[in-house]
Amino acid sequence: MISWLPSILALALQPSVPATPPRPAAATPGSVVAAAPASAWADVPADRLLVMDLADGRRVTIALSPDFAAAHVANIVALARAHWWDGTSINRVQDNYVTQWGDATEAKPLPPGIVAPSRNYDRPAAGLAFRALPYRDSYAAAVGHVGGWAVARSRDRAWLPHCYGMVGVGRNLAPDTGTGAELYVAIGHAPRQLDRNIAVVGRVLSGMETLAALPRGTGDLGFYTDPAQRTGIATVRLASELPPGKRPAWQIMKTDAPAFTAWIRVRANRMDDFYERPAAALDICNSLPPVRARPAG
Amino acid sequence: MISWLPSILALALQPSVPATPPRPAAATPGSVVAAAPASAWADVPADRLLVMDLADGRRVTIALSPDFAAAHVANIVALARAHWWDGTSINRVQDNYVTQWGDATEAKPLPPGIVAPSRNYDRPAAGLAFRALPYRDSYAAAVGHVGGWAVARSRDRAWLPHCYGMVGVGRNLAPDTGTGAELYVAIGHAPRQLDRNIAVVGRVLSGMETLAALPRGTGDLGFYTDPAQRTGIATVRLASELPPGKRPAWQIMKTDAPAFTAWIRVRANRMDDFYERPAAALDICNSLPPVRARPAG
Repeated sequence: MISWLPSILALALQPSVPATPPRPAAATPGSVVAAAPASAWADVPADRLLVMDLADGRRVTIALSPDFAAAHVANIVALARAHWWDGTSINRVQDNYVTQWGDATEAKPLPPGIVAPSRNYDRPAAGLAFRALPYRDSYAAAVGHVGGWAVARSRDRAWLPHCYGMVGVGRNLAPDTGTGAELYVAIGHAPRQLDRNIAVVGRVLSGMETLAALPRGTGDLGFYTDPAQRTGIATVRLASELPPGKRPAWQIMKTDAPAFTAWIRVRANRMDDFYERPAAALDICNSLPPVRARPAG
Repeated sequence: MISWLPSILALALQPSVPATPPRPAAATPGSVVAAAPASAWADVPADRLLVMDLADGRRVTIALSPDFAAAHVANIVALARAHWWDGTSINRVQDNYVTQWGDATEAKPLPPGIVAPSRNYDRPAAGLAFRALPYRDSYAAAVGHVGGWAVARSRDRAWLPHCYGMVGVGRNLAPDTGTGAELYVAIGHAPRQLDRNIAVVGRVLSGMETLAALPRGTGDLGFYTDPAQRTGIATVRLASELPPGKRPAWQIMKTDAPAFTAWIRVRANRMDDFYERPAAALDICNSLPPVRARPAG
């Protein structure tokens, strides 16, 4: 425990050491992400990455979560492969709630084999490498992270919480009416009351600045009253369907990587110059794992 | 405890009672609000109601909270009376964070007497008629409601939490640099890490569908890179300055009214047909008190 001595001695020998060295800049969430090694990132599989190109040229990418909503994710993959969403539209934008897209006529036939799973809102917690976030949650017994996803859980069950940017399966009143053809994304404060009442199937990785800034609909539930207000969807593809040179490639930080642990610690205890009183806390929806476009090369 | 007997007897005498009467429709948050008596609503004082008219004709109204940020609210009232914001603009929109407005040049002189209070982020909890929300909060020891406002608290201090729609005072790094001339509103998941690091001065009552749907800025922190991207602010007035026939009038539900207690219960335990599993919980940012335009007459 005297390993600091040589450093002190070395310091004493310096000709002119400032009396008070400048305090090193505190780590920020951004600096932790920038410093994370390549090994801290996992590629989103190209056959689990939805690429939605809007008619106005803007793009949205969505990572699907087969570990949490396998039956719905299988439907969504089949719908994308059938190019079912091409020519559909964004039909509903309700402020501080959701942006929703699909077939506005509700009459477009589904491809063969697409059946609405009943419920599918959660899964057994057993078998998940759950890393608990050490802070209270208002809604769930515990919250934390599993394999790049933010997760809420009870003793026995686990589910993806309705955070900003999470994608869920629209349904009617009956629990077996959501196929995955009608999807929505949360665009405001997390509507956690929907947890375990709807299947959450993924997360928007890019394009939230588009989906969250669309004009709000003025009809009931934020539906557009005039079809001209809808934003057209040109195509929805799996990244794996696109030519290799044109595939977007995204990475999510591994939630069992040391960099993620550091990022959580810094997010919960902001010490950069702006903050006078670190929160010493973090809620699950403020801790969705960092994402980035896969670096070239 | 036999007071039900006459009813049962009366029922038995009915000629044709359906075997299974239809279940009465469950209360929804909306039905509780619609049924709330006039006595459950409090007028927002016209001299604490900011009316911001944008250059494109859209309007935003903001209730100020003198009980929580008196010194900043006094500045904001003085700035509105001086018509200081007329001709300024919305300069920053950062996705899932804030929309911010003020003088883009940062050079416009302030009216005499406007001095930045130091800190002013919270206040003593003593003396507040705090009604606790009976659910956990990720960030504060307790959360609840006081006089129409959602409030977070420690043992000794209380503050307005950074929820969607709450308005705060922009500042630079030093804690005594925010006058109230530069304001922002939270437009995404609640950035509660800002609590007690910034003075929160009010809440947007109408117009969030405008402020939250503006194009995101592409510069650092979401600032617009081209002045043409800014949304102009035509005027900001206190409602009390407007001619009586042109004053908007807003009401906030009284948080000590029975209707509010019922609304919280229904929000936390959704029993309407869509919900299969009521959350039995509610977070503070999903419990901002209902507001409405004051009914005519």
